[in-house]
Amino acid sequence: MTTVDTPFAVLDTDRLDRNAARLRDRLATLGVPLRLHVKTSKSVDVARRVHDGGPITVSTLAEAEHFADAGYRDVLYAVGIDPHKLPRVAALLRRGVRLTVLLDSPTQAEAVTSFARKEDLRIPALIEIDCDGHRGGVAVTDPALPEIGRVLGDHLAGVLTHAGESYFAYTPEALHKAAQNERDTAVAAADVLRAAGLPCEIVSVGSTPTAHAATDLTGVTEVRAGNYVFFDLVMAGIGVCTTDDLALTVAVTVIGHQRDRNWVITDGGWMATSRDRGTQAQAVDQGYGLVADAGGTLIPDLVMTGASQEHGVLSTRDGAPVPDLPIGTRLRILPNHACATAAQHDRYHLVSGEVWPRHRGW
Amino acid sequence: MTTVDTPFAVLDTDRLDRNAARLRDRLATLGVPLRLHVKTSKSVDVARRVHDGGPITVSTLAEAEHFADAGYRDVLYAVGIDPHKLPRVAALLRRGVRLTVLLDSPTQAEAVTSFARKEDLRIPALIEIDCDGHRGGVAVTDPALPEIGRVLGDHLAGVLTHAGESYFAYTPEALHKAAQNERDTAVAAADVLRAAGLPCEIVSVGSTPTAHAATDLTGVTEVRAGNYVFFDLVMAGIGVCTTDDLALTVAVTVIGHQRDRNWVITDGGWMATSRDRGTQAQAVDQGYGLVADAGGTLIPDLVMTGASQEHGVLSTRDGAPVPDLPIGTRLRILPNHACATAAQHDRYHLVSGEVWPRHRGW
Repeated sequence: MTTVDTPFAVLDTDRLDRNAARLRDRLATLGVPLRLHVKTSKSVDVARRVHDGGPITVSTLAEAEHFADAGYRDVLYAVGIDPHKLPRVAALLRRGVRLTVLLDSPTQAEAVTSFARKEDLRIPALIEIDCDGHRGGVAVTDPALPEIGRVLGDHLAGVLTHAGESYFAYTPEALHKAAQNERDTAVAAADVLRAAGLPCEIVSVGSTPTAHAATDLTGVTEVRAGNYVFFDLVMAGIGVCTTDDLALTVAVTVIGHQRDRNWVITDGGWMATSRDRGTQAQAVDQGYGLVADAGGTLIPDLVMTGASQEHGVLSTRDGAPVPDLPIGTRLRILPNHACATAAQHDRYHLVSGEVWPRHRGW
Repeated sequence: MTTVDTPFAVLDTDRLDRNAARLRDRLATLGVPLRLHVKTSKSVDVARRVHDGGPITVSTLAEAEHFADAGYRDVLYAVGIDPHKLPRVAALLRRGVRLTVLLDSPTQAEAVTSFARKEDLRIPALIEIDCDGHRGGVAVTDPALPEIGRVLGDHLAGVLTHAGESYFAYTPEALHKAAQNERDTAVAAADVLRAAGLPCEIVSVGSTPTAHAATDLTGVTEVRAGNYVFFDLVMAGIGVCTTDDLALTVAVTVIGHQRDRNWVITDGGWMATSRDRGTQAQAVDQGYGLVADAGGTLIPDLVMTGASQEHGVLSTRDGAPVPDLPIGTRLRILPNHACATAAQHDRYHLVSGEVWPRHRGW
């Protein structure tokens, strides 16, 4: 790893294993299986390490196809289906992959059923439920919910919700409440379908914050989480992990100084960290990331405060003099948002020297 | 192009040609040659179209190697050199590429000269000059400037400056002043070297805003610009172009609605647009981008106001009802920052149906 030119993504498998074990233990206690979201790592090697061969969630059909090539056979595509994409869904089903789609409108349900009829396929579909006004989904009280179920008929596989607003829950109480609400909303939606005489086999919930805060998942059949394999400063900012849990960092090299301004300049800009400023609205704004030495030990008060495409600017939080970091010094940046930072890289460099490829595209 | 699944990057070559012709005409009038910055497109096809075979600027050695493979022989690597990367510089020089490096400290100059001596090579080097406190570079008045020149000896090729603060110049007067300052600072730095008895063949300036605002480039030997091939909303926000000049957009599809909240949901999230919020600090905050129909015509007042990894949220600026955009409707997002948005994609889809690959990595 020390011979690779910076910037590059560093994956600490000790921390990865620790993060994986923590959620595995939690879910074992709660008695609900994990459906790993692979959108964070987009790496078959990471998925095998933390959840060997188990059911997965994907954010793109390209991920579904990539993991299918690697032998994964139970895949949930958790973005509302664009009817144009149904031919690729059919191709995956015909390869023997149980590919489940997501939708939240009668229009999509009609597109799925009419396509499935023409192709003589069953396309398992979950109805997306809105539990917190974060993004897509129908409300539990919306008459569209049973209507979509009826249109889907045999294709109806269950319901799914995602507590996206839990990323803005800043106390253990708020996190617990978000988890409880996510579970309660999903179970209530399943009850609406069942009361209408419709089946609801799958009740899927999840996000990294709620997966770590839930205490009762009665009625839930699976939990989705992805970010937790790496964690990041946003998750540390809401208290779901500590900065010592971050498994993904970006290796950079000092290439200059502006001593009058107390700046250290590195060769890691936003191309290496992403433009994500997810901690900007948190109690502590971590800029583009915190700074550690080459071994991963945090350098107190040093923050990546500026980024252009291939330049990072490091400075101290309080304007105190920056530590002595000569040109050529290797450092590591702890990122705001692991999903966005990982997406800037084609591979992960393990501390052991091994390289794990990363998939991308749509 | 209509058969490709969204999201994908769309490149309008009519607008690309128009943008290229505009700067070509300007620089012809000013009598200074262009050194195209390829960091925005990272595409040999784009570079050939706008500046066939001419000298280029790169932001990574991976770009230098990629363009060298395509026959480019005059390449400036415009990020301060990390001494660890000198072996790759040497390999490019030995392939017959005139690869020029950049530096702003005696430490780097010593690393370059001692490596060059050992390898028996001349490594042309420019000294980076700070003209506006934006990033790296030495001040014209800094005694380090002639000192670096003396350390470089025969490797000294000239000076370079970049008016990075011109991205925050919001009036024609401010843009013109930034351009004049960029030119004056570079020429003054060259004069410092010459007064010390050192040669200064190259006087390199540039940024997209200053390249379009300069009226006198006496003493300058080349202008660098890259973003202008695509332009973007940040450039439109400072008046360097109009929204009608944007050659790069992202095709997305409507996958849902939240009618109570006046939201249209698409399958293009930050993975497709990037997390760049460059217009956030401008007079008009364009969210994650403006919205056009599939043909590229702007839909008035519709803005991409929210983004998660694979979801975009479109809403109106004033809360007025969103237009009727049924599920399956194709749209295009005009991005804040073309360099960051292009980086999320591996290829450009031309309106003609042709596909141009894009390079990435370090």
